[in-house]
Amino acid sequence: MSGILPIDLHSILDFTISLARDAGDLILEGSEAIQRAAGDESQSTVGEKKNSVDLVTEYDVRVEEHVKKKIFQKYPDFKFIGEESYSTGSRPPLTDEPTFCVDPIDGTTNFVHGFPFACISLGLIYKRRPVLGVIYNPFLNYLYHGIKGHGSFLIRNGGEPKRLPLYPPKHLASLSQAVLAVEWGSDRGSTTIASKGSSFMCLAGDPAKGVEGGRMAHSLRSMGSAALNYAMVAQGGLDMYWEIGCWPWDVCAGIVIAEEAGCVVTGSHTAFSASVATPAFGDVTEEILTGRKYLVIRAIADTTAEKGPEAQKRLIKDFYDTVVDVNAN
Amino acid sequence: MSGILPIDLHSILDFTISLARDAGDLILEGSEAIQRAAGDESQSTVGEKKNSVDLVTEYDVRVEEHVKKKIFQKYPDFKFIGEESYSTGSRPPLTDEPTFCVDPIDGTTNFVHGFPFACISLGLIYKRRPVLGVIYNPFLNYLYHGIKGHGSFLIRNGGEPKRLPLYPPKHLASLSQAVLAVEWGSDRGSTTIASKGSSFMCLAGDPAKGVEGGRMAHSLRSMGSAALNYAMVAQGGLDMYWEIGCWPWDVCAGIVIAEEAGCVVTGSHTAFSASVATPAFGDVTEEILTGRKYLVIRAIADTTAEKGPEAQKRLIKDFYDTVVDVNAN
Repeated sequence: MSGILPIDLHSILDFTISLARDAGDLILEGSEAIQRAAGDESQSTVGEKKNSVDLVTEYDVRVEEHVKKKIFQKYPDFKFIGEESYSTGSRPPLTDEPTFCVDPIDGTTNFVHGFPFACISLGLIYKRRPVLGVIYNPFLNYLYHGIKGHGSFLIRNGGEPKRLPLYPPKHLASLSQAVLAVEWGSDRGSTTIASKGSSFMCLAGDPAKGVEGGRMAHSLRSMGSAALNYAMVAQGGLDMYWEIGCWPWDVCAGIVIAEEAGCVVTGSHTAFSASVATPAFGDVTEEILTGRKYLVIRAIADTTAEKGPEAQKRLIKDFYDTVVDVNAN
Repeated sequence: MSGILPIDLHSILDFTISLARDAGDLILEGSEAIQRAAGDESQSTVGEKKNSVDLVTEYDVRVEEHVKKKIFQKYPDFKFIGEESYSTGSRPPLTDEPTFCVDPIDGTTNFVHGFPFACISLGLIYKRRPVLGVIYNPFLNYLYHGIKGHGSFLIRNGGEPKRLPLYPPKHLASLSQAVLAVEWGSDRGSTTIASKGSSFMCLAGDPAKGVEGGRMAHSLRSMGSAALNYAMVAQGGLDMYWEIGCWPWDVCAGIVIAEEAGCVVTGSHTAFSASVATPAFGDVTEEILTGRKYLVIRAIADTTAEKGPEAQKRLIKDFYDTVVDVNAN
């Protein structure tokens, strides 16, 4: 695909990787500052965590501003969508122009708490499709990158890039053999919590032991970073990841990295149903990219009885038959 | 405490760390073999995952046998409790003798799936109390160790040991500011799933938005390894971790590492209630160690209004008031 692009994605990738590593240093600096401030505050009478909370916002903004500045210096014509810019109200609508779509710190709660699963997520959208992604967790020194049509890779501790998935794909017969990533998210009102809770209980529950509709998944995981969940599905360490309520900048880079590792990404129950029987199935359209509901499934090997893509469709359908759709608030 | 022991815990620690690293190599070898076998099987007609499932058991047993052999060579008088030995029926009851308590691969589901949060957990019990622990995740090259009375430490990527917690403790005013680790576990019958599901929904739910009894925790995490959850609470990256149904070898090493980082470990609702107002509170008795129900909370800084240990008690009480006790099946 990138061969037909009028932009040099390989050169942009080199730039973006270098930018991610710079930003990672700033994220580590912020984490250190926040943990120390939070410890200090409990010794003082200033009121709990006031300064550390300010620091979280400060570093989120600082990372985004740094990234934005560097991008505009290098690619003055590119557009930019960032979590922090969006929060302040200036949402740029998607256009056909090259557009960086950036979450400066994905997994903010983890970042605040010193739980080392936070990252910067740098995606590039071109002609309304994600075409390039870099996800960097500076705490573990894991850097994922991918270009549409050119594969995705993981660099651990500055070593050699390993093509994703890390191992040849396995088959996946049913949800009962799957490890599924789900998240409790930030919308905790009674409707969402009841729907998500009962969905998780169905995914985990054993139908042979009284859980009606239970799928007895191998297990459920919640790590608290959408971008790193995508990366882990791409890597092959998670079988599926379901999310409602996150934003394009949380998933843009992850979508490219996952797709290039043989994953299929779809949107909501409705978006999936509308596309499943069409040739467009698996195309992350603008509607899906901005739809705030996502499901990704890892690469699945063909067997004599079933091709991988058919298994991916079947398992997505079974997953969506199991869980309840909720509004993305 | 170790000063009064007739055994040299520092020398045992050196041995145990070296043993953990050896075992880690075997775990990585096993992971590679299993991922490749699982990929191969989907290409063949042998029946899905047969060989890879055999390999999982094989490596679990091989790691335990290796560890057991090395321990018996070095410390022929020490007793040994291991997950695999126990599964075969030979459960040694606790005695006053030094006893290694070992989970060869903790986080087996993660190990099987190539999700890089699995570890070996090597604990030492003496006079029926955990006194030494080593937890090693070879995938991330994180090694945690601790000796009762001598602190606990994290070695990342073979670097310098860092004392735990990694940063000075923060205060923790309420569960609404906490990141809580919970696990779906392996008992998925309707009673357990309903109790755990509703407990998680209470921990996550917002009482101001209709979730009765909701605590609106900052977030919930599920990583799938009891030992690594303990280590993460010790490190300060998680605030609490609740578990029902795991075994002494899953938590023995973690208990020492957590306690030495200022954490408090308690047992079931009942065990907590019985001990909370007594001087024995926080003592991991044989009953708690073997009771298969555990709650651990991180070190909490004193404030002018509340001492850390009082906050730990208050938050454990609030946690247990929020969640439903279930049987450890």
